[in-house]
Amino acid sequence: MSLSPAEALRLYLPECTPVLQTQAEAFAPSNIALCKYWGKRQAALNLPVNSSLSISLGELGTRTRLQVIDAPSDEVWLNGQQLDADSRFVRKVSQFIDLFRSLTPARFRVTTHNNIPTAAGLASSASGFAALTLALAGIYAIPRDGRSLSRIARMGSGSASRSLFCGFAQWHKGELDDGSDSFAEVLSEAWPDLRIGVVEITTAEKSVDSRAGMTRTTDSCLLYEKWPQQAARDLQTLRQAIAAQDFTLLGETAEHNALSMHATMIASWPPLLYWQPASIEAMQQVWQCRAQGIEVYFTMDAGPNIKLLFQQHSIEAVRACFPTMTVVDPWHGPDPLQG
Amino acid sequence: MSLSPAEALRLYLPECTPVLQTQAEAFAPSNIALCKYWGKRQAALNLPVNSSLSISLGELGTRTRLQVIDAPSDEVWLNGQQLDADSRFVRKVSQFIDLFRSLTPARFRVTTHNNIPTAAGLASSASGFAALTLALAGIYAIPRDGRSLSRIARMGSGSASRSLFCGFAQWHKGELDDGSDSFAEVLSEAWPDLRIGVVEITTAEKSVDSRAGMTRTTDSCLLYEKWPQQAARDLQTLRQAIAAQDFTLLGETAEHNALSMHATMIASWPPLLYWQPASIEAMQQVWQCRAQGIEVYFTMDAGPNIKLLFQQHSIEAVRACFPTMTVVDPWHGPDPLQG
Repeated sequence: MSLSPAEALRLYLPECTPVLQTQAEAFAPSNIALCKYWGKRQAALNLPVNSSLSISLGELGTRTRLQVIDAPSDEVWLNGQQLDADSRFVRKVSQFIDLFRSLTPARFRVTTHNNIPTAAGLASSASGFAALTLALAGIYAIPRDGRSLSRIARMGSGSASRSLFCGFAQWHKGELDDGSDSFAEVLSEAWPDLRIGVVEITTAEKSVDSRAGMTRTTDSCLLYEKWPQQAARDLQTLRQAIAAQDFTLLGETAEHNALSMHATMIASWPPLLYWQPASIEAMQQVWQCRAQGIEVYFTMDAGPNIKLLFQQHSIEAVRACFPTMTVVDPWHGPDPLQG
Repeated sequence: MSLSPAEALRLYLPECTPVLQTQAEAFAPSNIALCKYWGKRQAALNLPVNSSLSISLGELGTRTRLQVIDAPSDEVWLNGQQLDADSRFVRKVSQFIDLFRSLTPARFRVTTHNNIPTAAGLASSASGFAALTLALAGIYAIPRDGRSLSRIARMGSGSASRSLFCGFAQWHKGELDDGSDSFAEVLSEAWPDLRIGVVEITTAEKSVDSRAGMTRTTDSCLLYEKWPQQAARDLQTLRQAIAAQDFTLLGETAEHNALSMHATMIASWPPLLYWQPASIEAMQQVWQCRAQGIEVYFTMDAGPNIKLLFQQHSIEAVRACFPTMTVVDPWHGPDPLQG
C-alpha cells in the first residue's frame, strides 16, 4: 500500500524534534540532467521510472526566504512580485508546505528569487523546490541531511531531489513503494574544466509542463517502452566517462540521451514538440562546430532551450559560435547543504 | 541461404520468354507512405523490417523511356540533362538494369523525367525505380504483373514496390529469405475526397540518404526496437480507417507514424535530424489549423518537406494557411500497369 505524501514526509525525516523557527533562508542551484528523468512509476510521491544523473549549475538557482506570518494563508513573492493566491505557482508551493504543516501548523511569507528564467526548460522548479525544502528544514529545525531532504524535495518536483548538491548528483530511482530508497546523492568526482553554456531560445512559458508531458509520453508512446533500458545504459556510460574524465564519451552520451528523451515526446500522441525553429538552428550549429573540430555537445530539457557542454579550453571557440550564451562554471557556487 | 539480386529476379519473373524490344516507355507515380517503411531485415534484396502502406500521387511521378543503343555503356538523361557515367544516379540505374541484362545483354539510353523534386524526401526514387522496372518489362516483353514487378522494383528501392499502383498500396514485408513474399498490392478501397498537399521546405539534396539513414537507425537506436510493433499496429489502424472512411483516424495515425519514424532517427547516433527550422514552423502551423477546427494532418519522409493530408471540402481553408502548397489528387492519374 502506498503512502500519502504527508505520511512519506514523516518516514523520510531524519530523527529530530521539529521546532518552529521564525525565519530561514536557503539557496539551491538549478541542475541539468545528463541522463534525463522522464516518466513516473508513481505520481503521488514522484517516483521515477529511471535513475538520472545531473550537474548542478553553481551560482545559478533559487534563493528562498521563509518568515512565519500571522495570516490565514501563505503569501508568495516571486522575483519581487507578490503572486495571486489562486495562481498555479502559489498553489504548488502551499501544497508542498502543507506537508510540513502537518508537523506544526504555520503560515509563511515565501520570498523567492530565481536568477534563471522560470518555466523555460531551465529547471527552475528543481532549484525552487530544493531551496524551499532547505528553507523549511531551517524553519522546522530539521538537520540538513542530504538523503532525507532529497527524498522530501523529490515530492515537490522530481528533479529537485538532485538540486541539493554541488557538482554531479545521481538520483537513484529506487524500488520501494514508499519511496524511501528514491533519493539523490552527490558523486565524489569533480571535473573542474567542465563548463555549461546556456543558450536561451525563448523565455516563454511552456504550453505543456513536464508533469503533463511525462504522463502523455508514458500513456501514448510505444517507443517509450525502451526508454528505461536506454536511460540505465546511458547512466552507466556517464559514470564511466566521469570516472575517466573522458569528455567525448560524456558529451556524446548526454546529447544522445537528451535527443532520445525528445524522441519519446515526439512519438507521443498528441505530439509533444518542445523545439522551436531556433532550437533546430542551434542544434545544427553545434554539429557544425563539431565538424570543425570544436568539441561541444548539447542537452535539452522539456523546453526549447539548449545547454552546451564543453571544456574550459574551448570557451572562446564556442563563444564565437554562440555569442549570446551564458557560461556557467558548475564548480563555483555555495554548497546548499552547508549554506 | 539468401539469393543474389540477379537470382532473385529470375525467381520473381512471371512465366515468360524475355524478348528484347528496341524501345519502351512507362510512367509510375510517386507515393507517400501513411505507415512508413523504415529499416531493412536484409539489405541485398531490400527486404523490410515492417509492412507499410502508401497512397500514390496520381500524376506526380516519373516517366522513363528506354532505347537499345549500340554503345559500351548506358547513357542516362535526367530531366533533359545527360548525367556523368560516374555519378551515383547512373551507377544505381545501371546496376539495376544489370539484373535484366543477365537475361539478354543490351545497353540503353535511359531518358527519365521527374515532375517532382529529386532526392528531397518526395520519394522520386520510388517512382524512378518503378518506372524503370515497367520500362524494362516493356523492353524484355515481360507481362505487367503487379506482384512480380513489385518484387523486382523493390530491389531498386524499397518504396518503389508501392509505386506500381494507383490509390492505396500495401507492401507486405514477407517472411521468406528469398523475398518472394515481399511485394505490394493495391487496396480495393478508393477515397475520392482525399487530397495531398505538398509543402516544399527545401529542394536541396539530403546529406544522409534513406538507405544510410535506415542503417544508422537499426545499428544505433535502442528505441527502434519498438518500431516494428508500432508500424504493425499503425498499419492495422490505417486499414480500419480506410475501410470506414474515418478521416480523423487516418490522419492521426499517419501523423503519429511519421513522427515516430522521425523519433527513431533523432534517437540514433550520430543524430539523424532531417528537419529544418521551417519544418518545425510548418508542423506548428498544421497544429494551429487543427486547433482552429480545420482538419489537416501531415506526414514526412526522410527529408525536411511536409505532405498535408486533408479532404476536398477543406481545400480552401488549408490553402489559406499554406498558400504555396501543391495540391495532389491521388485519384487522377494513369494506372501504371495499364499504361
